[in-house]
Amino acid sequence: MNYPKKISFFEVGPRDGLQNEPVFIPTDKKVELIKMLTQAGCERIEVTSFVHPKWVPQMKDAKEVFDRIGQKEGVTYSALIPNLKGLERALDIGVKEVVTIMSSSESHNQKNVNRTIKESLREIEEINKIAATHGVKVRSYIATAFGCPMEGDIPVEKVAEIAMALEESGSYEVSLGDTTGMADPIKAYNIPKYILAKVKKASVAVHYHRCRGIELANNLASLQAGITVFDGAAGGLGGCPYAPGATGNTATEVLVEMFARMGIETGIDLAAIRKCGEYAKTLSTLSCET
Amino acid sequence: MNYPKKISFFEVGPRDGLQNEPVFIPTDKKVELIKMLTQAGCERIEVTSFVHPKWVPQMKDAKEVFDRIGQKEGVTYSALIPNLKGLERALDIGVKEVVTIMSSSESHNQKNVNRTIKESLREIEEINKIAATHGVKVRSYIATAFGCPMEGDIPVEKVAEIAMALEESGSYEVSLGDTTGMADPIKAYNIPKYILAKVKKASVAVHYHRCRGIELANNLASLQAGITVFDGAAGGLGGCPYAPGATGNTATEVLVEMFARMGIETGIDLAAIRKCGEYAKTLSTLSCET
Repeated sequence: MNYPKKISFFEVGPRDGLQNEPVFIPTDKKVELIKMLTQAGCERIEVTSFVHPKWVPQMKDAKEVFDRIGQKEGVTYSALIPNLKGLERALDIGVKEVVTIMSSSESHNQKNVNRTIKESLREIEEINKIAATHGVKVRSYIATAFGCPMEGDIPVEKVAEIAMALEESGSYEVSLGDTTGMADPIKAYNIPKYILAKVKKASVAVHYHRCRGIELANNLASLQAGITVFDGAAGGLGGCPYAPGATGNTATEVLVEMFARMGIETGIDLAAIRKCGEYAKTLSTLSCET
Repeated sequence: MNYPKKISFFEVGPRDGLQNEPVFIPTDKKVELIKMLTQAGCERIEVTSFVHPKWVPQMKDAKEVFDRIGQKEGVTYSALIPNLKGLERALDIGVKEVVTIMSSSESHNQKNVNRTIKESLREIEEINKIAATHGVKVRSYIATAFGCPMEGDIPVEKVAEIAMALEESGSYEVSLGDTTGMADPIKAYNIPKYILAKVKKASVAVHYHRCRGIELANNLASLQAGITVFDGAAGGLGGCPYAPGATGNTATEVLVEMFARMGIETGIDLAAIRKCGEYAKTLSTLSCET
C-alpha cells in the first residue's frame, strides 16, 4: 500500500455540523468554535450558510459570524450558498470562497434544492461566472454520490458527468457526498477513482457521513483511491432530527487521529482538534451516536 | 481491490465482552445472549473462561453456562483457558475447543498471565498435547500484536516467532490481538500479511479493539492483507473499568454490516446480530463509547 505523505481537511462542523440543530446556538459560541478550529490548524473552514432563514433558521446569523471570527491569514473561511441570492449576500460581505450544493440523484436534488439537475448545473455555472468576476473561488458538493435513500445507487457515469460539468463551469473542487451514510469501502474506492480519472484538474474531495465507524473505513478506501482532501466535522456533528437516515459527519478528530497513526501529515494538532470536538458536542442537542 | 467472497467470524462477546463487568451478570442472561448469537448465525462463539474466580469473578459460572446453552450442531462453543488448570476444568465438562492467551510483549505477558513468553509457550505446548489426546482443538491469542501500552511497537518478527511456535505446538488458529486499540491501517495490513507468510497452515485471525471507529478501517486493511477470520463482540462490548487504555471489541454487527454492504458473505443475519448487540449492551455497565 502506498499512502501520500500529506493530506488536507475541509472542516464543515460550523455549517453542516450545526445547521440542523433545532435550538438556535448563540453566535458567540459559533464564533468560539471557528476560532478554536483555526487555532487547531484547520486551514479551510465552512463557517456558515447564506440560505434563507425560513429554511435554515440556525444560520440566520451568517453575516454576524463572518463579522466576528477575525479571519486569520492563510485560512479560508467559506460559506455554503444554495443559489444566486446566497451568492449576493456572500459577496456583499466579502466572502472569499463559496460552496454550492446539488445532488447526483434527480429526486434528492428536487427535494433538497427544488431544482432539476440541469437547473442546478445552470445556476452553478452562473454562480461561477459572477464569483469569478469578484475573485471568489467556488467549491461544489455533489450529494448522494454514493447512493440515494430514494433512488439507490447512482450510476458513477452520472456522478462523473456532473463533476465534469462543475469543473467546466469553474468550480475548483468537487466534494463527493455520502449524504446519508450509505457508502462502503468498495464504493468509496471505485467512485472517487473513477471521478479522479474523469476531471481534468479539479480537486476531488470526499465527504462521508457516519455509519457506526464504517465511515473511517470509507475514508481509508478513498485515500487508497488517490483522494487527498477529506471533509469532516469536529465532534462528528450533523444529522437531522427530522430525517432519520441523516447521520452526522465523519468526526474530524478521529480521522486526524487515524492519519496521524499512519504517519500522514494533516497540519492539524490532534489534542487541539479533540478539544474542538468536545466543545462542538456541547453545542449539539442531536445525538452524536451513529 | 480484490476481496474474498466469504469471511468468517469468531464471536467473543460473552467472554471478552463481559469478563470485566464489575457486577455479576446472571447466568440466565449470558445463556440468552449465547442462544441469540447462535440464532443469528454465529458459528464460533467464545462463551466463557475457565479462569480462577478470584481473578475474573464474572466468569465463575463457566460450567453452568456450558450446561445450559443447549449446543447447536455445527456451532463451536469455546472457552478461554489461562493455563493447564483451566484446561482440566474445560475437559471435565467436555468442551470441544479451548482458547489460550499470551502476549507478544514480555512486560504485558508478565502482567497479564504472570509468565515469561517462554513459559507461556511451554505451557501452551503442554495444553496442545493434552488437548490433542482428547480431540479438543486449540485456538491461541497473541495479545499486543499491534503495539503494547508498556513497550510500544512489538517487532513483527517477534510476533511471527510466537505465531510459528504456537502453530508448531498444535494451535490450529492464531488471533492477532490489538489489545488496547493502538493499531492503524498500515500496521493492520503489514503485520497480518507478514504473519500469513510465516505460518504454514494455521489460520490467522485479527482481533481489534475499538478506537472511535478506526477499528473498522483496521479490519478493512487486514481483509486487504488476506485475513478472512475476524473477532468481534456483539454490541462492541469489552473494555475494563480499571484499565483506562482498554477499549471494547470491534462491534460484530457493525463489521457484519460493512461486509454485507461490500457483498461479502458472513453467514450472519444483520438484523439478528443487531438485536444481539442491543441485548448485549443492556447487560453492560461499561461504556460502549470509544
